[in-house]
Amino acid sequence: MFELGVVYRNIKRADRTATDRLAQYGSATVHEAMGRVGLMKTCMRPIYAGAQISGTAVTVLLQPGDNWMMHVAAEQIQPGDIVVAACTTDNTDGFFGDLLATSFMARGARGLIIDGGCRDVKTLTEMGFPVWSRAISSKGTVKATLGSVNIPVVCAGMSVKPGDVVVADDDGVVVVPADWAQKVADSAQAREANEGEKRAKLASGVLGLDMYSMREPLAKLGLKYID
Amino acid sequence: MFELGVVYRNIKRADRTATDRLAQYGSATVHEAMGRVGLMKTCMRPIYAGAQISGTAVTVLLQPGDNWMMHVAAEQIQPGDIVVAACTTDNTDGFFGDLLATSFMARGARGLIIDGGCRDVKTLTEMGFPVWSRAISSKGTVKATLGSVNIPVVCAGMSVKPGDVVVADDDGVVVVPADWAQKVADSAQAREANEGEKRAKLASGVLGLDMYSMREPLAKLGLKYID
Amino acid sequence: MFELGVVYRNIKRADRTATDRLAQYGSATVHEAMGRVGLMKTCMRPIYAGAQISGTAVTVLLQPGDNWMMHVAAEQIQPGDIVVAACTTDNTDGFFGDLLATSFMARGARGLIIDGGCRDVKTLTEMGFPVWSRAISSKGTVKATLGSVNIPVVCAGMSVKPGDVVVADDDGVVVVPADWAQKVADSAQAREANEGEKRAKLASGVLGLDMYSMREPLAKLGLKYID
Amino acid sequence: MFELGVVYRNIKRADRTATDRLAQYGSATVHEAMGRVGLMKTCMRPIYAGAQISGTAVTVLLQPGDNWMMHVAAEQIQPGDIVVAACTTDNTDGFFGDLLATSFMARGARGLIIDGGCRDVKTLTEMGFPVWSRAISSKGTVKATLGSVNIPVVCAGMSVKPGDVVVADDDGVVVVPADWAQKVADSAQAREANEGEKRAKLASGVLGLDMYSMREPLAKLGLKYID
Amino acid sequence: MFELGVVYRNIKRADRTATDRLAQYGSATVHEAMGRVGLMKTCMRPIYAGAQISGTAVTVLLQPGDNWMMHVAAEQIQPGDIVVAACTTDNTDGFFGDLLATSFMARGARGLIIDGGCRDVKTLTEMGFPVWSRAISSKGTVKATLGSVNIPVVCAGMSVKPGDVVVADDDGVVVVPADWAQKVADSAQAREANEGEKRAKLASGVLGLDMYSMREPLAKLGLKYID
Amino acid sequence: MFELGVVYRNIKRADRTATDRLAQYGSATVHEAMGRVGLMKTCMRPIYAGAQISGTAVTVLLQPGDNWMMHVAAEQIQPGDIVVAACTTDNTDGFFGDLLATSFMARGARGLIIDGGCRDVKTLTEMGFPVWSRAISSKGTVKATLGSVNIPVVCAGMSVKPGDVVVADDDGVVVVPADWAQKVADSAQAREANEGEKRAKLASGVLGLDMYSMREPLAKLGLKYID
Repeated sequence: MFELGVVYRNIKRADRTATDRLAQYGSATVHEAMGRVGLMKTCMRPIYAGAQISGTAVTVLLQPGDNWMMHVAAEQIQPGDIVVAACTTDNTDGFFGDLLATSFMARGARGLIIDGGCRDVKTLTEMGFPVWSRAISSKGTVKATLGSVNIPVVCAGMSVKPGDVVVADDDGVVVVPADWAQKVADSAQAREANEGEKRAKLASGVLGLDMYSMREPLAKLGLKYID
Repeated sequence: MFELGVVYRNIKRADRTATDRLAQYGSATVHEAMGRVGLMKTCMRPIYAGAQISGTAVTVLLQPGDNWMMHVAAEQIQPGDIVVAACTTDNTDGFFGDLLATSFMARGARGLIIDGGCRDVKTLTEMGFPVWSRAISSKGTVKATLGSVNIPVVCAGMSVKPGDVVVADDDGVVVVPADWAQKVADSAQAREANEGEKRAKLASGVLGLDMYSMREPLAKLGLKYID
Repeated sequence: MFELGVVYRNIKRADRTATDRLAQYGSATVHEAMGRVGLMKTCMRPIYAGAQISGTAVTVLLQPGDNWMMHVAAEQIQPGDIVVAACTTDNTDGFFGDLLATSFMARGARGLIIDGGCRDVKTLTEMGFPVWSRAISSKGTVKATLGSVNIPVVCAGMSVKPGDVVVADDDGVVVVPADWAQKVADSAQAREANEGEKRAKLASGVLGLDMYSMREPLAKLGLKYID
Repeated sequence: MFELGVVYRNIKRADRTATDRLAQYGSATVHEAMGRVGLMKTCMRPIYAGAQISGTAVTVLLQPGDNWMMHVAAEQIQPGDIVVAACTTDNTDGFFGDLLATSFMARGARGLIIDGGCRDVKTLTEMGFPVWSRAISSKGTVKATLGSVNIPVVCAGMSVKPGDVVVADDDGVVVVPADWAQKVADSAQAREANEGEKRAKLASGVLGLDMYSMREPLAKLGLKYID
Repeated sequence: MFELGVVYRNIKRADRTATDRLAQYGSATVHEAMGRVGLMKTCMRPIYAGAQISGTAVTVLLQPGDNWMMHVAAEQIQPGDIVVAACTTDNTDGFFGDLLATSFMARGARGLIIDGGCRDVKTLTEMGFPVWSRAISSKGTVKATLGSVNIPVVCAGMSVKPGDVVVADDDGVVVVPADWAQKVADSAQAREANEGEKRAKLASGVLGLDMYSMREPLAKLGLKYID
Repeated sequence: MFELGVVYRNIKRADRTATDRLAQYGSATVHEAMGRVGLMKTCMRPIYAGAQISGTAVTVLLQPGDNWMMHVAAEQIQPGDIVVAACTTDNTDGFFGDLLATSFMARGARGLIIDGGCRDVKTLTEMGFPVWSRAISSKGTVKATLGSVNIPVVCAGMSVKPGDVVVADDDGVVVVPADWAQKVADSAQAREANEGEKRAKLASGVLGLDMYSMREPLAKLGLKYID
């Protein structure tokens, strides 16, 4: 845990098909399908609206104000990966910009999740390279101190192991443990199937109180209606 | 104040015509028209830009991580209402998503103001259901503990009584006490009438210093010009 | 430093040509070109995306909840200026709206940087008057207490002297001391020239590790690769 | 609600005996006794440890950076009151120091709850005048703009009416509506009576799981023990 | 990872002797000894100054506003343990007070680390039961929703596995993986041995610049002295 | 402004006598005496209560997670100085602990003001070396990147020039420009003389409303008393 100065080259990525299926359900449904766990903190926001992706995590542990390990991570990216960058302390510096994005895209990365800052957001938006970050910052960084690549990290309050699945959209970022991917994808699919029917009922004026049979348990707990 | 486990079914809503007139003036003008009071904290942000609404408040008091009362509230919505959801503690969970929005819209709600989190923001944007929230979060919630509906609440630092008028736009959310609605609408209208003329003068190069006769009071307080 | 109740009418503005050249490079490149200094805190966000400006600073020191000095500042604006407003304490009130923007535009201002709140953001967006602020707030302000105009201020953690160059875009706000403008513009231009070539290499799959010759220094510090 | 420029001289204070009884139970027990409502936000901290008070609220609505209304409030204080100061916006300025404390003490005030800043904390500690505030700040304030005294306010997220009971200690600040005081004091007393016995059992090694008969409901919800 | 509704009864605790040795070095030295990793976020503060402990982690995953799992955890405590409580979302409610502390002490717990709120801090201080928390809050909690005990958690930004060593003092909270305990204790001891000599030299006026031979590397990087 | 990689060895310190006089008045009185300017943000808190100091500033600009320049600064300290450390970005790492404090004390420093983190707070308290910081953190730092010593910095929102006077106590930290020291000390002394008389009057029951003749200006602005 949290070794500094190491790069793991061989990581076990989650099943590709399961990973790719998860994008379509989005972070909210996947979060429910996992039993309501796995969500990063809400300070993680997309730099532009509308992106919805899933991929396998290549993890990076950065030092504050230092993006050297991002370059080391680039070499470990395989097509379908999402880079997940944590930092040894809270830091909003602009660790990532359009040059690194160019490199990451060339390697096949689908996006970046960074518990830190991002810059060149206008260019990144034009390039269509989605980033979820806790800050936007012009501040450049140095290349002086070692961190690590592909060790387990904590990113925005959630633990991420290399190879885990990351699902990110406008609602946030969810992490699915690699060996849960298939099961969670199935469960998300089942939930989604249900949702269409529920939506139709609710649109027709049926209340959740009735559709979910909530009136009795509410009354049991003592809910009182007062006219 | 803050009773738990109760739902008030009969609330006195502000006058409909006065309520509806207030939307056009927007939160900043209404705030001025009220004498500079009534504004919720600035952490309340719209999930998409451009919506500008007014409506009568149906209030909800939530428990952290629990959106049960949102379903109870749905039944109390009448056309022209805006749901105002407070929580017994700071909590950013995703209490509200597209299914509840479908139900609220079917009941005639014009929007939601929630001192908590919101999810499915892409779908809500497509549906055109505006939400002002303190966070966006994929995190789903349980249905286990009673709160209340249509009691006075404090939402984002402002007290809201059921039936009060809520005015919300890109600048924020203002609450107008139900029995002030008519007077505030008149005052807002008067302000707006004035603004066109002022804007023209300022655009022509007249300074506020002269238009508002500020030079004399500034000099009296001792403002010094140094060349 | 921080005198209250004074307005300096004659300030030495940075060279106009150098000032104007800086806009095109953007805040991230300018920040690097300055040696990684000069950036305001990341809480300063544009009210709409896409604006990218540079200009000479007219500074204002506000009192909390009081925008009187903004009117005093208007008179000191010359074409090509950007108003930089600080406050004697943290305050998110809506010191600035469409009327002041009309006046500032009539005077030739290119934008506003305010360590406080801004309102009427929808109208300001339509007018194309860019503002970077720490908050959006409907809250109106009084005109009761003196501050100052064109004294050195600290705005969002960065010191700004009247006449300094301000560069602002989607990534943030950078301040260039007036007498550094020419040198920084040259340095930014040189950096930009380099970037095209680097981008092409990275897009073709060359790694930063190789392009920047990082492998040796990383190895020297002890970076270990584990298979 | 939130009228500016008014001072209510005749307020209905909660029953003195009930008010005074509440101090001994402390904020946590009173909060439970009220049904888990009434608590101010946790940003409200005492300037020194160990004070535990109850009293009737004299309310003040301040403007940012302006403590004029504190002087107006002083005249309305009666022995046994606690001053509760709110502000029309978030502001941490030092609205209150040792001179005002001297005046408040001379009037019989038991303490101050202020959703803003406090200064002279060393002297206040020596004087034994307890203050709960959101900040400590040397910043002095002006006397320029009207607020109000003895109107309903929202202080640190909780609505307070003049005459309500305030209970404050190291754990925080709770507000008891004036006409609930007797009932809440009785309920708090009953809780406290219970606590001694519970404490003894727990100290002897009995588990809450058994003392509160939690094992069955936990099992029903599906809690699994894994060896 | 993050299973809900489970309690692991058999966990592998770090070596007792190594665990106990770590207390004396304190969190700062242990953090250095680990290679500068393992620290929880700085929002975690002790409820009283001066406590300095180490122990083996019993972990709890709480739901917001719900302390049920704390009672479940009590049964899993063995002498020498420290309870580490995480929550599925940010929440400052008072999950822990003097009754639970009585129970935890009866079981042999040395303290509590909670990424949430704590109450009864005056009584806890008198009892000498140290707690590190992100907030102090009178707010009581419900017992309605399952979390877990003794699963890996993320507490204040750091991942903690059941049985890991926790070292906490006035400087913060550090987590040492169970199988690193011995090595880290040895390394901390070595560092401490060094520190006495260094302190004596610095006290005699020797500069760190000379003691650590920093002048040459600083000059190499280009540090310029200007008279 | 904000040059990196430089150390100014000859700085013009404020007059020693004036500097030393300022300690006794405390930050609140000095802030008033300066005309209500010069205060650092309220996030700066003393690591222990009761210290009240003044001294001349030796400034340091740190890089995030890197305390190398603190060692460089030590050599520039003269008896009666207070070190003021800023950072190029927000960072709470523990840049300073008991070893550096030993070195600073040996050089005659009276304290440290750091817009960052501090560690070893128990030992620092025992040593009687006062520190005002924005965080307490065990996190150690590297020595890899150049900052500067004795350049103008912005520390916690306030600009500080080398040689300026710093006044710090339990209420906060105020900066007095070097050439204002004498005048501010005189003005603070005059204020203090006044305060004793005012305090006696207020203690005898005279209201601020009468002592400061506020009733007339309040009435003029329209303050209404309602019975």
